[in-house]
Amino acid sequence: MSDSPPGIDLMQTLTVNLGDRSYPIYVGDGILSKAGDFLQRAGLRGKVAVITNPTVAQLYLDTVHESLSGAGFDVTPVLVPDGEQHKDLRSLSVIYDRLIAERLERQSCVLALGGGVVGDLAGFAAATFLRGIAYVQLPTTLLAQVDSSVGGKTGVNHQEGKNLVGAFYQPRLVLIDVAVLQSLPRREFIAGLAEVIKYGVIEDPALFKLLEEEIGKLTSLDRALLTQVIATSCAIKAKIVEQDERENDYRAVLNFGHTVGHALEAATHYQKYLHGEAVGIGMAQAAAISAQQGFCDQRSLERIRKLIKKAGLPLEIPREVSMQNLIQSMEMDKKSAGGKIKFVICTGIGKTRFHALSPGEILTALGA
Amino acid sequence: MSDSPPGIDLMQTLTVNLGDRSYPIYVGDGILSKAGDFLQRAGLRGKVAVITNPTVAQLYLDTVHESLSGAGFDVTPVLVPDGEQHKDLRSLSVIYDRLIAERLERQSCVLALGGGVVGDLAGFAAATFLRGIAYVQLPTTLLAQVDSSVGGKTGVNHQEGKNLVGAFYQPRLVLIDVAVLQSLPRREFIAGLAEVIKYGVIEDPALFKLLEEEIGKLTSLDRALLTQVIATSCAIKAKIVEQDERENDYRAVLNFGHTVGHALEAATHYQKYLHGEAVGIGMAQAAAISAQQGFCDQRSLERIRKLIKKAGLPLEIPREVSMQNLIQSMEMDKKSAGGKIKFVICTGIGKTRFHALSPGEILTALGA
Repeated sequence: MSDSPPGIDLMQTLTVNLGDRSYPIYVGDGILSKAGDFLQRAGLRGKVAVITNPTVAQLYLDTVHESLSGAGFDVTPVLVPDGEQHKDLRSLSVIYDRLIAERLERQSCVLALGGGVVGDLAGFAAATFLRGIAYVQLPTTLLAQVDSSVGGKTGVNHQEGKNLVGAFYQPRLVLIDVAVLQSLPRREFIAGLAEVIKYGVIEDPALFKLLEEEIGKLTSLDRALLTQVIATSCAIKAKIVEQDERENDYRAVLNFGHTVGHALEAATHYQKYLHGEAVGIGMAQAAAISAQQGFCDQRSLERIRKLIKKAGLPLEIPREVSMQNLIQSMEMDKKSAGGKIKFVICTGIGKTRFHALSPGEILTALGA
Repeated sequence: MSDSPPGIDLMQTLTVNLGDRSYPIYVGDGILSKAGDFLQRAGLRGKVAVITNPTVAQLYLDTVHESLSGAGFDVTPVLVPDGEQHKDLRSLSVIYDRLIAERLERQSCVLALGGGVVGDLAGFAAATFLRGIAYVQLPTTLLAQVDSSVGGKTGVNHQEGKNLVGAFYQPRLVLIDVAVLQSLPRREFIAGLAEVIKYGVIEDPALFKLLEEEIGKLTSLDRALLTQVIATSCAIKAKIVEQDERENDYRAVLNFGHTVGHALEAATHYQKYLHGEAVGIGMAQAAAISAQQGFCDQRSLERIRKLIKKAGLPLEIPREVSMQNLIQSMEMDKKSAGGKIKFVICTGIGKTRFHALSPGEILTALGA
């Protein structure tokens, strides 16, 4: 892109097309230290509340603060505690208090600097402060970069369940710096790969093949490859979201691997697996169900299992988790209807369909 | 309308045209007891949480409950305490808890039965529960019927200010029953008339003339006239909102009389005036400023003052309120910019423009 700020290598630009809610995603190496330029070019000005957590703040807040100040922004850092258990109404209230104390206005902006928790919280605060102010995502985990930063889902948890309070609210701008992944714990990076593999399975045989060939280079954090793979992942998610922004229907295809994955997270009380790890197992199981039900050929099933394993992700439901328990969790899921559980089935690499299965059929398919 | 439920007289139907967020407003006599039919015809089904307060519940909850149940809905009443001071995050949290406990789903619906406080709270809860579920307004005050139920502003107050947290979220349906106004305290009814007069001043000379001629019949609660006047008011607001849904610009014309009005409410700690009463004074003062600045002829100024007075609304800023105090409140208002205060000026009955005035100019114009 000819008008990119200087000093950024390998940058790819894409657009999420949602009418008057459209926005660009920039993916590249070194974007974080140019954040101020990007915001300025996007027409933003005045006050920016940077919402982040202590871990990320220690690594990147100074750089982002300096870049924003250098571009003329009036910066207010807002720290929220790290961890999913703090994605709640209490943290939200703390953010509101700070936005009010710092006199943010309708023309001001919220920037989320962190992973999915920070992004969801900051996005919901932006969606609801003064009935909605501009919102910029600067995701610092692979999972947030390829998944939660695209598509406008924001919100907080309730003690009774995840994301029960929230809004669909699109950011004004997403800035993805692949360089920050070098500071991400390796286990979190690997977990994020599950969503990347998912995009290959549901939508893109070429991405799937690239991952099969280059997964080692990717886990070595090759920045050119990271830029390419992350931009491709975001483009796939954007294309799906553009067709069904509010998840009335087709957007649910993004839940491939998530029906079993979510149930597994719940059954293990969100302690044993990172989200992506549970999705790894969920995808392997969904692929097995797809094959067992006659939708997916054995060759594709084997390729999917092999890639998940090669990425370093788990494949199998652990023995200590009871199948009955898993099925119950799936039935509680808001996507269940009429006694059957709706699965995203793969019908080969890059192809999907929806299929509802009864608990009995699931048990049989999983060989339990 | 040929497809209206039986037993409703004088009904008028209008549509707020906002693309895929468009919705109908029904105004008539006897609509409340047919609520279930209207919801059913709008394609709603399943669970309905009726959000209301104890005062309104005692008068109308049984009727609405019966109508909804009769139409096959599964009804959950949710009572919130009466009064602006309860339009806060705490009440919102109570509503979320109930919606979750009653297992409302994405296909479920929230119905606001009450005045502006109930409407704003219920609307914001609907906007943010499960990232947005359907929302129906059944306003029971004149103010809510002609103002807050149209246009999609929802939200709660923060101790630092009103409506600091909220969302633009359009209802699926608005049901206005003029019969309920007979139970509204007379002072509240009169206060609601301020907004009706405002629509005449800013947009509609014919409405203004009708009010001049028939204000007595209106305050006697003539239902045919109420239906006509309320439908006209809603249509004017709808037309303005359609042009500028998120108040980037033109929608601010609805603030005629509100710059001084809001300041007066703040200066008297929200104790002395109902909102509409403060707006009555605010309109008289805004008209005086319009004339003093050479935008509005004396004849129009006199007609405006006379109508406000005839409606039973106050005209003058009380002596005990200091002008300095008022100006300070106006400067705090989020609509001020660059040291000047933005006023909606009338340039005759039915015509407006924006004009920024310095504090000194305001003091001079108000003859202080």
